[in-house]
Amino acid sequence: MTNTIPPRSGTAFKMKQGECLKVVDPEGEQVADLYAFNENDHTEFLSSGRSLDYNESVEFGKGAKLYSNNSNVMFEIVEDTVGVHDFTLTPCSVDTFKHFYPNEAPVPGCFGNLAAAFEQYGIPKHLIGTTFNTFMKVDIDREGKISVLPPVSKAGDYTVFRAKMDMIVGLTACSAGESNNFSYKPIEYEIIAQ
Amino acid sequence: MTNTIPPRSGTAFKMKQGECLKVVDPEGEQVADLYAFNENDHTEFLSSGRSLDYNESVEFGKGAKLYSNNSNVMFEIVEDTVGVHDFTLTPCSVDTFKHFYPNEAPVPGCFGNLAAAFEQYGIPKHLIGTTFNTFMKVDIDREGKISVLPPVSKAGDYTVFRAKMDMIVGLTACSAGESNNFSYKPIEYEIIAQ
Repeated sequence: MTNTIPPRSGTAFKMKQGECLKVVDPEGEQVADLYAFNENDHTEFLSSGRSLDYNESVEFGKGAKLYSNNSNVMFEIVEDTVGVHDFTLTPCSVDTFKHFYPNEAPVPGCFGNLAAAFEQYGIPKHLIGTTFNTFMKVDIDREGKISVLPPVSKAGDYTVFRAKMDMIVGLTACSAGESNNFSYKPIEYEIIAQ
Repeated sequence: MTNTIPPRSGTAFKMKQGECLKVVDPEGEQVADLYAFNENDHTEFLSSGRSLDYNESVEFGKGAKLYSNNSNVMFEIVEDTVGVHDFTLTPCSVDTFKHFYPNEAPVPGCFGNLAAAFEQYGIPKHLIGTTFNTFMKVDIDREGKISVLPPVSKAGDYTVFRAKMDMIVGLTACSAGESNNFSYKPIEYEIIAQ
């Protein structure tokens, strides 16, 4: 069953070990922020830093593993028609909107949307760290400068993440104009049984 | 007063807003992992992702600000004789030692040392995220590959961080050979009143 995340919103759901999450960019150039907690221990969660450490690259594609703060594998990317994602920047929030888009009315952003979705599972928002920003294109040049560029994903492109533990997973359709070339489109996802 | 952190260990201490923390590499080529919590609210802590977002660069030097997960400034770098640091990788731990140095007996690492130091202030270890790795040299090439290289810091080099809020601060002398060119030296620090 395909689920749709409307523009500038988010959701959370449970996944069992072995299931796959297919994240689809139905119209192209959209970003989906992904975060996850161990279902049985909310002090274990997705860790950008551990994943960058073990991946030894800021690029993540098919075969890459996403680790928890406890160095356990949470997801493995098993299919990927894009291969361009980001795992360095935090989800957009009321504060990042004030910082980067001072003339725009602040919206909850991916952080606010994830916080609301995880709250339904009793998970406090301060445990939401740097998300895996599916389809987000971030360039780091030789001087270290970070640039957020339009996603390279085309309509129908997707990435499939296999769950390596039982988890509560949050996913968004990104709210920040710079991340999605100011297109604010939906995201689709599907849970595929083992 | 100059304090010494012995090789492969760590400490934690309180800092008041306006005070400065001078972190010195007394012998050269050593790394000091820095982390901090809001003294009055341990759910606010140093955030690599927010800092990378607002810094718009992976390079941090004089004038750079280090942000919390709540988008408040925790530190400002006010002096820096090095200008080469890392804010992408997590502190070394028992698990990273098993991964990267499988033939070496695992040590607590910077993570274990910070966890023990913060525990004395009642702060649980799962709240320790990606540290600001003072003097650590990490190269990210055009293909995204991450390489940990020897620090460029020479004996006596230092970085001064001004506290922008009341904090509990953790600091280490790094345990991971790759980070400090297998030299395992001490770190010195000093708290300078406003």
